[in-house]
Amino acid sequence: MPAAEAQSWFVIMAGGRGTRFWPLSRRHRPKQVLPLAGEQSLLRQTVARLLPMVPAERILVVTGPDMEAAVRAELDQLPAANVLVEPSGRNTAPCIGWAAVEIQRRAGPQARVAVLPSDQVIERPDELRAALELALRVAGSTDSIVTLGIRPSRPETGFGYLELGEEVDRQGDLRVRRVVRFHEKPDLERARRWSQGGQHLWNAGMFAFTVGTMRAAFAQHLPRSAAALDLLLASPERLPELWTELEATSIDYGIMERASSTLTVPCDPGWSDVGAWPAVGELLPELPGGRGRAGRCVAVQSAGNTVLVPDKLVALVGVQDLVVVDTADALLVMDLAHAQELRQVLAELDALGLTALT
Amino acid sequence: MPAAEAQSWFVIMAGGRGTRFWPLSRRHRPKQVLPLAGEQSLLRQTVARLLPMVPAERILVVTGPDMEAAVRAELDQLPAANVLVEPSGRNTAPCIGWAAVEIQRRAGPQARVAVLPSDQVIERPDELRAALELALRVAGSTDSIVTLGIRPSRPETGFGYLELGEEVDRQGDLRVRRVVRFHEKPDLERARRWSQGGQHLWNAGMFAFTVGTMRAAFAQHLPRSAAALDLLLASPERLPELWTELEATSIDYGIMERASSTLTVPCDPGWSDVGAWPAVGELLPELPGGRGRAGRCVAVQSAGNTVLVPDKLVALVGVQDLVVVDTADALLVMDLAHAQELRQVLAELDALGLTALT
Repeated sequence: MPAAEAQSWFVIMAGGRGTRFWPLSRRHRPKQVLPLAGEQSLLRQTVARLLPMVPAERILVVTGPDMEAAVRAELDQLPAANVLVEPSGRNTAPCIGWAAVEIQRRAGPQARVAVLPSDQVIERPDELRAALELALRVAGSTDSIVTLGIRPSRPETGFGYLELGEEVDRQGDLRVRRVVRFHEKPDLERARRWSQGGQHLWNAGMFAFTVGTMRAAFAQHLPRSAAALDLLLASPERLPELWTELEATSIDYGIMERASSTLTVPCDPGWSDVGAWPAVGELLPELPGGRGRAGRCVAVQSAGNTVLVPDKLVALVGVQDLVVVDTADALLVMDLAHAQELRQVLAELDALGLTALT
Repeated sequence: MPAAEAQSWFVIMAGGRGTRFWPLSRRHRPKQVLPLAGEQSLLRQTVARLLPMVPAERILVVTGPDMEAAVRAELDQLPAANVLVEPSGRNTAPCIGWAAVEIQRRAGPQARVAVLPSDQVIERPDELRAALELALRVAGSTDSIVTLGIRPSRPETGFGYLELGEEVDRQGDLRVRRVVRFHEKPDLERARRWSQGGQHLWNAGMFAFTVGTMRAAFAQHLPRSAAALDLLLASPERLPELWTELEATSIDYGIMERASSTLTVPCDPGWSDVGAWPAVGELLPELPGGRGRAGRCVAVQSAGNTVLVPDKLVALVGVQDLVVVDTADALLVMDLAHAQELRQVLAELDALGLTALT
């Protein structure tokens, strides 16, 4: 049943609801299926980026029931069985545990796996692929989980950080170093220090492991989940009942931060997480008064705005740093500096029972 | 031919292009036909306000060819012959000269005429009607043009002012006083002084006269126009050719400021000229984040905005004092303090050849 030689697989996590791009993103049409950067959706770009490394048969996408239709529509090049639909959202540890079991069934416990988010922008895909190749190779020859670490370009307080230890391997320009510690999102003071000190990297949610290493990590740190995964390996049809046995925690908190040995491949592939509206602006084409797309845009004394108003004229007069997003049923006008408060809009709409709009 | 007794007539000037309410107002759908305050258009409200004083047959409306269709559609209660369509816009003096000749033909030179803009908001129509009655009576018994003067409520720099002289008549609480001088739009320093000194009133563009008085004033101050009006009285079918003979100047500059005797009836009927977006806000119903109308509106940390977004949800996040107006083909997002720059948008659209949008 297991392949003779250890294969490399990819797991793309595409389960996020994507509230931060409302009103463009909705429950059924999350961020990752939107063409936020370029002509294609972020998800489709993520898959396309991996196809030079593995055939489509070895790319799994994990998503949720709300967005299954949108995700499948984006991924016509993948086998239908490669889209794993979680019965419900239970954070990232169950998602990765299930994917590991699924790959074990198809390729055996030696299979090497790299996990990636579905909603990144990568300027230099060759550099990403080189780092992934190295992480997969090291994961296959050690018992370590091997993360990719992104060199910080600004004092970002919205990401977790990896603290770097000694170098353990290298290949070409790339290094492999120990992770001394995982840090949660820091305050601005620390973010400033870490982004300049050279000893910390951004945790971008990309990491490689063998199925065997991950299953052992579950057994050690999340034993109740590990037991459910054993049953799931034998009886995949029992997913609906076993799913709720899997502990609803993040892979970072549940596994990675507790692992005895984690390695990282520092890299700089021009990564952006496009986390919310403020990050999108710089990816969009220039237009009068800012960046974005519009049927037509006229601006007077306006600058720095992010505009998505398809099919009609938008006129900006005397406004700066606004997000203006128009859709068929909802219009958002938001100050960029208040992007964190967008979730309050969705909470209010849900509270009003207007779930069709979220 | 002249009526035995001098009749009162009204002339409503409805020729403005209304660029300041773009994108709601357009070349073919100017401000006065929009329901900016209340359910009915400003023009329809203006006519309704006069019907307690005269029958519809004695209300003339002067407009331009671009907006004729929209104006006629609003005024189904008026005889078709009472809508006068100017061949082209030549400022207000030709408009009033033509209307005076038209009323002379129908009711003789003793007829009394009051001129009003089509785009005002009046909170207390009874007080307006009382002032108009008095102005018409005094106009009929003197050789004076009798303006209505509005008591200033703020140091407005956008209006002309009337400087008050001695009292010459009174009726009930109302007074009739001489106008010592007409003042053009003042600077802020003067506007402050005039709005508090009690000796200046706003010139709201409402005034009464007899046909004979107005024709005599044309003969004295605009003799070339007066000659053309003589011909027009005899041969109304010659309007297209005679129209270009009428001097293109304002009634204020061409006649009123030069007249030897002008009177005014000070009044305070709750007048607002709704000149541009900033003035509209306070007339609209409250909604979250400001005032206006929307399919639905959700606001987070937002206040003071003017919102007209029919038929869809609008979400405001962290924005203050914006004008957000959505139409089928154009969306405006403007800082209230920059309302004067809206004309630059229209100039640019016209320059781009996008006249369908203006």
